[in-house]
Amino acid sequence: MGSLIKSGGVSGAILSRIATNDQHGENSEYFDGWKAYDKDPFHLSRNPHGIIQMGLAENQLCLDLIKDWIKENPKASVCTPEGVYQFSDIANFQDYHGLKEFRQAIANFMGKARGGRVTFDPERIVMSGGATGANETIMFCLADPGDVFLVPSPYYAAFDRDLRWRTGVEIVPVHCSSSNNFKLTVEAVEWAYKKAVQSNKNVKGLLFTNPSNPLGTILDKDTLKNLVRFVTRNNIHLVVDEIYAATVFAGENFASVAEVVKDLDSSEVNVDLIHIVYSLSKDMGLPGFRVGIVYSYNDSVVSCARKMSSFGLVSSQTQFMLASMLSDDSFVDNFLMESSKRLGIRHGVFTLGLKKADINCLISTAGLFVWMDLRHLLRVRNSFESEIELWHIIIDKVKLNVSPGSSFQCTEPGWFRVCFANMDDDTLHVALRRIQDFVSKNSNKTAEKASDNDQLIQNNNAKKQKWKQSNLRLSFRRLYEDGLSSPGIMSPHSPLLRT
Amino acid sequence: MGSLIKSGGVSGAILSRIATNDQHGENSEYFDGWKAYDKDPFHLSRNPHGIIQMGLAENQLCLDLIKDWIKENPKASVCTPEGVYQFSDIANFQDYHGLKEFRQAIANFMGKARGGRVTFDPERIVMSGGATGANETIMFCLADPGDVFLVPSPYYAAFDRDLRWRTGVEIVPVHCSSSNNFKLTVEAVEWAYKKAVQSNKNVKGLLFTNPSNPLGTILDKDTLKNLVRFVTRNNIHLVVDEIYAATVFAGENFASVAEVVKDLDSSEVNVDLIHIVYSLSKDMGLPGFRVGIVYSYNDSVVSCARKMSSFGLVSSQTQFMLASMLSDDSFVDNFLMESSKRLGIRHGVFTLGLKKADINCLISTAGLFVWMDLRHLLRVRNSFESEIELWHIIIDKVKLNVSPGSSFQCTEPGWFRVCFANMDDDTLHVALRRIQDFVSKNSNKTAEKASDNDQLIQNNNAKKQKWKQSNLRLSFRRLYEDGLSSPGIMSPHSPLLRT
Repeated sequence: MGSLIKSGGVSGAILSRIATNDQHGENSEYFDGWKAYDKDPFHLSRNPHGIIQMGLAENQLCLDLIKDWIKENPKASVCTPEGVYQFSDIANFQDYHGLKEFRQAIANFMGKARGGRVTFDPERIVMSGGATGANETIMFCLADPGDVFLVPSPYYAAFDRDLRWRTGVEIVPVHCSSSNNFKLTVEAVEWAYKKAVQSNKNVKGLLFTNPSNPLGTILDKDTLKNLVRFVTRNNIHLVVDEIYAATVFAGENFASVAEVVKDLDSSEVNVDLIHIVYSLSKDMGLPGFRVGIVYSYNDSVVSCARKMSSFGLVSSQTQFMLASMLSDDSFVDNFLMESSKRLGIRHGVFTLGLKKADINCLISTAGLFVWMDLRHLLRVRNSFESEIELWHIIIDKVKLNVSPGSSFQCTEPGWFRVCFANMDDDTLHVALRRIQDFVSKNSNKTAEKASDNDQLIQNNNAKKQKWKQSNLRLSFRRLYEDGLSSPGIMSPHSPLLRT
Repeated sequence: MGSLIKSGGVSGAILSRIATNDQHGENSEYFDGWKAYDKDPFHLSRNPHGIIQMGLAENQLCLDLIKDWIKENPKASVCTPEGVYQFSDIANFQDYHGLKEFRQAIANFMGKARGGRVTFDPERIVMSGGATGANETIMFCLADPGDVFLVPSPYYAAFDRDLRWRTGVEIVPVHCSSSNNFKLTVEAVEWAYKKAVQSNKNVKGLLFTNPSNPLGTILDKDTLKNLVRFVTRNNIHLVVDEIYAATVFAGENFASVAEVVKDLDSSEVNVDLIHIVYSLSKDMGLPGFRVGIVYSYNDSVVSCARKMSSFGLVSSQTQFMLASMLSDDSFVDNFLMESSKRLGIRHGVFTLGLKKADINCLISTAGLFVWMDLRHLLRVRNSFESEIELWHIIIDKVKLNVSPGSSFQCTEPGWFRVCFANMDDDTLHVALRRIQDFVSKNSNKTAEKASDNDQLIQNNNAKKQKWKQSNLRLSFRRLYEDGLSSPGIMSPHSPLLRT
């Protein structure tokens, strides 16, 4: 930054926030995995030795349904011969309220994505640039620099960017642990709240993802109700990021906070404190289209957020097409049903495959990922250093890019988020075989590993206990040769791979 | 805001910034014009008595060329049968660097839009949500809350939003006056700079639009050079918003600050201080597509702005189509030539029409508007109250929605920005006829008006000197009947009108 300081200076406050919490930035250690992947991306036929990307929470399982719809509805795009007559209107449209039809279609989709158990008012739909922009916008609306939001951990790594960087808001984690399957409890929130208040923090609210990223779990309705009562009692805000609402594939119904608002009576919920963040990036698999939504029950917040919409409007080209697509009820109904079904199958195949390698995951019923328990594979138990070491082995040797729990502020080393919906079946099977081979070929080595109680001994014998990388390399070579002979062709899933 | 304060509070700092400077917000008096227009929008056949929108700096003159290109290039859209095979790649693409092809195409277009006299490095092209987002992003990169940017006035009204709201940056105007045709001078900047420093302001830089909005003028290259030398000498930043670069239709070549950076030697320019904001909203007439660009010569600013890109990424659907369109050299060359020609003709027709009504405009060679001098029509000269009064008459009686100079922080009452490129020829002629009729039918009344020196007398005779609204109403009725009989059909230019 030397030249900048010499050159009139830049924003010190923001740069320091970026620098101190650049978890997925180009300077972070977590970026290593991405760099490695970018250098050597897997392709079933063209690069079968490459790294498989399992760090991206993308949903590619139902894009064929969207493509079919597009082919059948050429008028829905202003960039087709059939739709171009509307091009001028749409190209010029920049009202920060958004296209009326778009807001209506989004409200319709949001209701259906929550099982039709709740409706949304199109007048409360505020556009933002993806969930990234929506989360920042709601922070700008609710908090001043230095104010605090409580966020249960493990949490989405980029919250440190979205909620903090430019707003100056502070995150205080509410630590959840494996002892109760990382379940968020009112007690944990109350404890964190009290502690923060005692430290003279100005706590403005509680924010969490439900369904949870990175856990893939959903919060039971009773706990959600109690959390709503808690924020109402303490007069702080509740922001629920529900961008995975339609990824629920099993178990009980997902309860949106919108349902709770509907169910509770006015003595139990101050609706002015309740806000939802939504997006089409996960539920529809359209992150590139940058559809982020702030939905607030508070009129003043709606008005304030709408004024800020100008900073993150959705392209009118995209608004127009989605307005048409999402107001097609039969398409939406079928898409949501099919998406849930395919995610369930994918999740089942993947977790069963991991089971064969004696790997367990946190039981989950939603999301595009599992929360994989590799604590038994850590060289030193309860060591974040070992987590990062194991992570490097998984990237460099197993050739899978997964995300270590520490990048989600998890307090227990050994957990990894592994995404399963951003690839085709063949790739998934290659990934599973790599994991299974890795575990089985190293079972002798893992047998050498320390038991739960002998950490001290292990520390003294670090050299002996080290992974034998040369042997590993040999076994992986065989593994890749297997991969090479696998049938099927996978097209590159990211345009970056074209170059 | 009562309920909010009772409800955990919202961001006080930001709300107060919005409230105190909500020039185009829903609570501002300037919003009246928009409300009036929205209630009664002109349509040549369906609503010939309606208000003509001349407050929108939209460029609709060459959208036919874009539509033709779209029809000929169905593969450029992922939402056509021909292009849909790329849908999955594009729908999933959310890299904050943007599509490589998009960055290259934008760099190519930016060079051509500046007459090919300068080239741009695609690696310095940073995406943002429109110029709105780009201007905010560069402020976040360069300044901390409370820091000051000097901005020559009259300036784009929404700078108060874009530069200030969420960043906390302060704008200190550099007042330009009609005495030298509102030309920005180094002396005026130096004076404002010194005054701000003396008031203990932390001046971080100078920002202006070139070509100017609202003036439509371009800054001569020598002055631009001297301003670059000035910022270099004082170690402050220079941000040039060049979103009207390709709207130049006459006169000397437009000199981008990029040309000056190229021309000056390193003792005269510290390139780390120079930044450009660009967009396709004006030059191509695509505001709905939200393409904003930060282009900086400073590596650290590029890196910082790119990290912030996540908050305002351009929809990948839009990136993909524009990448294809803007790398088509023959299309771009023809578009730029034709656009300049059509804007020149439109400007000529409009200013000549105004001349017939004895209305002069500031001489301009760029932009989508003129800076119209109605000082002689003010009831009280040098009175902003009279400017607003006249403005209401223009909206309510002449039925044109124009923008008063005070909304651009102009220090001299009586100037109005009038947009001429957001309508078809027929509508323009109706607008001109309304103005001409307004002036001629009220020439008797204007003869009664006060001379330059008799403001005191006039104040004593306010009743006598008042516009005779009942007579006006009569003359306007005739005017609208004329309008009704005009030939031609104009389609509504905004989707809002469809409802």
